[in-house]
Amino acid sequence: MKTKNDAKLKHQTELTVRYFETDRMKVAHHSSFLVWFEVGRTELLEKVGFPYWKMEENGYYLPVVSFSCRIRGSADYGERVVVETWVEELGSRMIVFGYQVTKNGKAIAGGQTRHLSVDSSNGYRRLPPELLDALRPFVR
Amino acid sequence: MKTKNDAKLKHQTELTVRYFETDRMKVAHHSSFLVWFEVGRTELLEKVGFPYWKMEENGYYLPVVSFSCRIRGSADYGERVVVETWVEELGSRMIVFGYQVTKNGKAIAGGQTRHLSVDSSNGYRRLPPELLDALRPFVR
Amino acid sequence: MKTKNDAKLKHQTELTVRYFETDRMKVAHHSSFLVWFEVGRTELLEKVGFPYWKMEENGYYLPVVSFSCRIRGSADYGERVVVETWVEELGSRMIVFGYQVTKNGKAIAGGQTRHLSVDSSNGYRRLPPELLDALRPFVR
Amino acid sequence: MKTKNDAKLKHQTELTVRYFETDRMKVAHHSSFLVWFEVGRTELLEKVGFPYWKMEENGYYLPVVSFSCRIRGSADYGERVVVETWVEELGSRMIVFGYQVTKNGKAIAGGQTRHLSVDSSNGYRRLPPELLDALRPFVR
Repeated sequence: MKTKNDAKLKHQTELTVRYFETDRMKVAHHSSFLVWFEVGRTELLEKVGFPYWKMEENGYYLPVVSFSCRIRGSADYGERVVVETWVEELGSRMIVFGYQVTKNGKAIAGGQTRHLSVDSSNGYRRLPPELLDALRPFVR
Repeated sequence: MKTKNDAKLKHQTELTVRYFETDRMKVAHHSSFLVWFEVGRTELLEKVGFPYWKMEENGYYLPVVSFSCRIRGSADYGERVVVETWVEELGSRMIVFGYQVTKNGKAIAGGQTRHLSVDSSNGYRRLPPELLDALRPFVR
Repeated sequence: MKTKNDAKLKHQTELTVRYFETDRMKVAHHSSFLVWFEVGRTELLEKVGFPYWKMEENGYYLPVVSFSCRIRGSADYGERVVVETWVEELGSRMIVFGYQVTKNGKAIAGGQTRHLSVDSSNGYRRLPPELLDALRPFVR
Repeated sequence: MKTKNDAKLKHQTELTVRYFETDRMKVAHHSSFLVWFEVGRTELLEKVGFPYWKMEENGYYLPVVSFSCRIRGSADYGERVVVETWVEELGSRMIVFGYQVTKNGKAIAGGQTRHLSVDSSNGYRRLPPELLDALRPFVR
């Protein structure tokens, strides 16, 4: 029997830390986690058939209305990290993505980004029901 | 009579949004808020006599261990924003900075960054008592 | 008597190196020079009455079609640098900006960016004659 | 019979444009090319057995002393680009890397970065002869 937890899918993205991303502490700057989260959700949306560039083309915008991140480790230039992306909350006009970044199998950071669905003039816009269906398996 | 609220000082930094900071949504990318927060606390630490570059030189490091941000508005290329920086929590080995970003007097974002005080080998290090004293007027 | 050299004006911008801009070599990443050049020309265009955000609003775009930079020194977090911006070449549909970055009065980098004037659909567009006139005193 | 041209190897890196990298012109900001060049040479050095993070660990630093780039096209969020990296010049204490960025097989940008080999105190340092040998097949 499947439990709710079993059902949760996560998308995995592998990234190599860029020199540009490091700072004088000799690790990736903390803002890099936001950029990596963005790569993670870009790939997740593409995987489920709703590439975000196409969504914007169709007048669906998902601006970030809040973000948070807890950092437990670090990653330096040339190191490989894995970003796991899933969905924390899913509404008709709102998505919260969840993320975990691991290095050598150990979590170095976790976070969330909350997005509203708006149209090009910034008014609320209901997400396509097909997108909601496609994301459901990734809901925690 | 002074109340606690009266006592709270905030440091104000004025910034102009850079073209580099914008994204295809024609506003500053959400990670820009973290960079602006960083400029804010850099100036606050300098103002109270503990420029952070000097702290690192003296073996005090303040890595970000968590951050969060709520976004209610946006700022585009060439627009001027004000970052207000204060201290949310102050401990012997920990500082939480608080931030608000305003544009034309209206809040567009608010956030926090939590920092641990560590030495160059990442072990806990008590902050200089003089720094704690200097920051106290900025504690909320 | 004024010589051509006397006539050359330069716009000066003072910047403080941001932590975000540094890399693991403990200096500002070389791409930062491009961002600082951009701040320099933004301010120069604003100074002469043609803020670039307004130019784009009016359908004048100045994409970068080439850039170059020679680096002789470096700047670290918290250090103040001055960006001098002038015009190397000025045509009816093209501007080459020149830049020098100094730290403590010593040049640490110099460069150029070449821009074409295009409209929103990327076709050539003649620059406003008033802009050419306004920039002329800054031509080398 | 092999001609000089046949002999030239290039390293190919495929990248997807990140949202963070775009600007309000709805294309990757021109400074992104420098970051992509950096990813290209990182991979080239790793491929020939001299990962740059290890070189720095061993006290070999390759700071950028000049860079240049000509831009003929653009790349937007989600688009895939290929960075080709080779060696333009190779000296005992100097490397010039050459780059071409293509999208759908069409060149959108080309450039160079010149690097000096220095030690941790910024004095000239001869490159390891084994590195020179390993890079030779990539010399134009």
